[in-house]
Amino acid sequence: MKKLHDKYGMSIPLHKVKVMDRFWGQVIDTSRKGTILACIVNCEKTERMNNFKRAAGKMPGGFQGNYYDDSDVYKVLEGIAYSLMNEPDAYLEKKADEWIEIISDAQQEDGYLVCYFILETNQEKRYSDMERHEDYCLGHMIEAAVAYRHATGKTKLLETAVAFADHFAAHVGDGIGDWVPGHQEIELALVKLYQETEKEEYLRLSQWLIEERGRGHGVGSGIWGKPEWGPAYAQDDVPAYRMADIKGHAVRAVFLYSAMCDISGLLDENRYLPALLRLWDSAVYRNMYITGGIGSSKENEGFTGDYDLPNETAYCETCAAIGMVFWNHRMNGLFLDSKYADVIERELYNGALSGVSLDGRKFFYVNPLYSDGTHHRTEWYDCSCCPTQLTRFIPSVGQYIYMVHADELYLNQYIASEMETKIGEHVIRMKLESEFPYKGGCKLRVLEAGQGGFVLNLRIPWWCKEYKVRVNGVEWSDSYIEKGYLKLLHPWKEGDVIELEFQMTIHIQRSHPKVLHNVGKVALMRGPLVYCMEEVDNKAFDQRVDVEGMKEEERGDLPAGVVVLRDHQDRILIPYYAWDNREKGRMSVWLTC
Amino acid sequence: MKKLHDKYGMSIPLHKVKVMDRFWGQVIDTSRKGTILACIVNCEKTERMNNFKRAAGKMPGGFQGNYYDDSDVYKVLEGIAYSLMNEPDAYLEKKADEWIEIISDAQQEDGYLVCYFILETNQEKRYSDMERHEDYCLGHMIEAAVAYRHATGKTKLLETAVAFADHFAAHVGDGIGDWVPGHQEIELALVKLYQETEKEEYLRLSQWLIEERGRGHGVGSGIWGKPEWGPAYAQDDVPAYRMADIKGHAVRAVFLYSAMCDISGLLDENRYLPALLRLWDSAVYRNMYITGGIGSSKENEGFTGDYDLPNETAYCETCAAIGMVFWNHRMNGLFLDSKYADVIERELYNGALSGVSLDGRKFFYVNPLYSDGTHHRTEWYDCSCCPTQLTRFIPSVGQYIYMVHADELYLNQYIASEMETKIGEHVIRMKLESEFPYKGGCKLRVLEAGQGGFVLNLRIPWWCKEYKVRVNGVEWSDSYIEKGYLKLLHPWKEGDVIELEFQMTIHIQRSHPKVLHNVGKVALMRGPLVYCMEEVDNKAFDQRVDVEGMKEEERGDLPAGVVVLRDHQDRILIPYYAWDNREKGRMSVWLTC
Repeated sequence: MKKLHDKYGMSIPLHKVKVMDRFWGQVIDTSRKGTILACIVNCEKTERMNNFKRAAGKMPGGFQGNYYDDSDVYKVLEGIAYSLMNEPDAYLEKKADEWIEIISDAQQEDGYLVCYFILETNQEKRYSDMERHEDYCLGHMIEAAVAYRHATGKTKLLETAVAFADHFAAHVGDGIGDWVPGHQEIELALVKLYQETEKEEYLRLSQWLIEERGRGHGVGSGIWGKPEWGPAYAQDDVPAYRMADIKGHAVRAVFLYSAMCDISGLLDENRYLPALLRLWDSAVYRNMYITGGIGSSKENEGFTGDYDLPNETAYCETCAAIGMVFWNHRMNGLFLDSKYADVIERELYNGALSGVSLDGRKFFYVNPLYSDGTHHRTEWYDCSCCPTQLTRFIPSVGQYIYMVHADELYLNQYIASEMETKIGEHVIRMKLESEFPYKGGCKLRVLEAGQGGFVLNLRIPWWCKEYKVRVNGVEWSDSYIEKGYLKLLHPWKEGDVIELEFQMTIHIQRSHPKVLHNVGKVALMRGPLVYCMEEVDNKAFDQRVDVEGMKEEERGDLPAGVVVLRDHQDRILIPYYAWDNREKGRMSVWLTC
Repeated sequence: MKKLHDKYGMSIPLHKVKVMDRFWGQVIDTSRKGTILACIVNCEKTERMNNFKRAAGKMPGGFQGNYYDDSDVYKVLEGIAYSLMNEPDAYLEKKADEWIEIISDAQQEDGYLVCYFILETNQEKRYSDMERHEDYCLGHMIEAAVAYRHATGKTKLLETAVAFADHFAAHVGDGIGDWVPGHQEIELALVKLYQETEKEEYLRLSQWLIEERGRGHGVGSGIWGKPEWGPAYAQDDVPAYRMADIKGHAVRAVFLYSAMCDISGLLDENRYLPALLRLWDSAVYRNMYITGGIGSSKENEGFTGDYDLPNETAYCETCAAIGMVFWNHRMNGLFLDSKYADVIERELYNGALSGVSLDGRKFFYVNPLYSDGTHHRTEWYDCSCCPTQLTRFIPSVGQYIYMVHADELYLNQYIASEMETKIGEHVIRMKLESEFPYKGGCKLRVLEAGQGGFVLNLRIPWWCKEYKVRVNGVEWSDSYIEKGYLKLLHPWKEGDVIELEFQMTIHIQRSHPKVLHNVGKVALMRGPLVYCMEEVDNKAFDQRVDVEGMKEEERGDLPAGVVVLRDHQDRILIPYYAWDNREKGRMSVWLTC
């Protein structure tokens, strides 16, 4: 794989990270045994796979479902790939190979491959409607193909994806045809294809697609959803480099920004950096819920106005929370500031994880912060982007743990794992033990240190007011923090042990004072976890909490290690991600105290 | 004055801020009675004023001194202007008027006015050597003229400055003549002239001068000092928008960056923002001393390499520390992040203030962090930029206290004062009581609140681990912090009182682990103050400190309120800014514990 530009912080590839975490180990295991299998069954049951068979001429009939349904199949394949990197699974690999065979059969002679257009429209309709997700499907095919190649070494899907990418590239571009992707995804996927193939034209095409935006090329194309939403719906109202406020459809927005980061990092390009910083402030300080959820409105699946963050009608699409991880991870690579990893942590343990049930088989598309008792998890959706998004996201959390930049190693997430990377020419191997998110103790063991002498950057989580660090049993006093990272320089050698103790206590959070929905209310957090009150534990459900002297206790009826909070009036709060897994009822994050 | 672009946070003009601070009141008073008078005497005694008389043909003889000496006169005039805004003073105003008369007489028919070139060279030598500070002198004339107009309403010096600026503008520019200022200053001064006159051509000229840099126009011009230093010495090695690492002469660097901020803020221009952020990281995280001092090398009065921060040979020019205030104040306006105000605080109480003696009459050009006993304050320098820099800086600290952006008010420095500003169309008046830097209690009184309902942003100093806020006697629990500011939204009305209590304790600081000079050492701070060990208090001068159970005590032989630190072994540490004011001896900031 081509080396990224050296100014862009790189995560350690997933196949070099083995997650060995009590918490995430269970979540990933549940994903493999639950989510992935459920999504495989549903993709087959709901005609998604049959569409490919029909497009290949191996089954009669027309297209069934939504025009973007191919993408679900690719996302499941990508999820299988990550799962295989974590743990071999003969069934999953066989199933993926089968699917790839079917997909590849459906590819047209010229490389084109979107089932809806092959089955339902004339050939000349291809690339005639920028909203119709052809590029979106291609993007997910590319991501799946690259992941599957890394997981198995098999290149069949990659060849299919390259042929389709080349077909797409031959139909858009300067002097060929305007193109503004209606649902961004192809941009970041082309970056991955460039990294895989080292063909710079994919990177340039990605940049060209970003540049087309906001220049009038999307006018009248239908990419803006309802006409009254205008071009902001698809981030087509201003050129990328001028963007300042997060607007429109939330998932589209963060997928675009992710690609803008990649282009900035890989080409050492200044152009989008000011916009990215402004957009991040806009997203995080003015349009994000405490859970990490973004996009408050169901209407446009996106943003309304600054500080408009209602709790009951909060849309907070699961895909958008996961997209925030994609974007923030890349921001972290660009700016090496732990505040981006803080947002990732917020999503990991709250807004993204809440999207899947504890058994991995039911999903939230929408993640409100208050429920009157009628909002519940579902096994599948007509538009099932969120379940399949989770399928590929959960098994890939390992890539957010570490980052390497120049001669410095960054520890971003305290997820127990073993990893291998290189600093300069030297192999570095580390093992992290952690009991996050319920306990704040971590132990990092140096398994192989190369020449030592590199800086180890430990993220001090934003919620942690006190911490202790010991190196080989001795308290580390030389504490210097830069951009939220404690920087340890030491002649590291095999056998060194860095012990971390982050004080993990209950902390009371308030909203920005302009969020009128939460005036006078508090939310309780403990470490990285946002807590909520669920009716099943609180029959009175008075949405009040007595914050003085709250007790923490482990609970048997929730997954191992879950700490619940109990106040003096015996009100019980549980982690937000775990809600709606028991008896149905009301729920609230923001409470009166 | 033309309104700045509304995306650029504005400080409240100095004449709308009255400093009423115990600490700064005394410093400003000492500046008025000591520094300004001393500088007036020295400018007259050292021929600086006589040069103007000779240039006017009113005194015989040639030029005396250094070619850039005019600038000292302007800086003193600017200091007088700020001092008059703080407090009327008939003597100072009369003196300034006299000087302005003399200066104006020296102006040539065509508007040109640099004594050295008028007296010593042929007319055709003007603007022939970019290093020779003609534009630097013009810049300081502009800054003085604008300040004096604001202080007194008198426009004579402004007319002189405009005529000279127009002369300069007629000789440089596209198709007229290349120009790369050897010592940046004109760029930020032209911005002030634009704000004063509303003539956009001054702003455009400033931007043009910034753009010329790093494009080869400075090659062979002599602006780079010693040939072996190369173009980085005058920040002429790469175009401004590509800059990443702080390099070369420290004062030149930060003056340039200040202008880059202004252009970015006033023209809502993205171009320099990525460079500014990179340069700030480079400056603050890799090239700044704990005192805020920058530029470690005497050789180039500037930077060597990252983390090369020797203590004894630290150059840390006073002007560079003050330039850091200029730059960081503008960064704060651009990004509304308190980390910039934190740097200003660091400079105010340490690296800048150390440049002047407690009686205001002796100066440090160089501010090392260790002295073997031979480094002492001096009344004047052959190159006396630092004393005159202090002359204009100290009386102007009031402008760093508050900032307004859109409908939000920012309190950046806890310097007791009264101020008046507008939010929208409404007059806002506030009074701040504070005992900084020695005590952490502050009280902000609302004198006039307009329609109320605006957000009050209180900087939480980086060193403060615990604080309390009360509004009208009631603890304020609705705490939400964004970019280091506690955001209070309230229907503010006359008579409201906001009480702040910042826990001000001793804190132990370590260097970045790559600063080899400080490995294993600590520096002690208390609140914003860096402390040092001076031989006069510590005859043994063992450069050690016992950090456990240190005591704080007020001391009579140092200015009122000074808290010194005493350890168990009776070692005494005093604030760094106050060193070398008593018996001569050794001094050290970094100590072994």
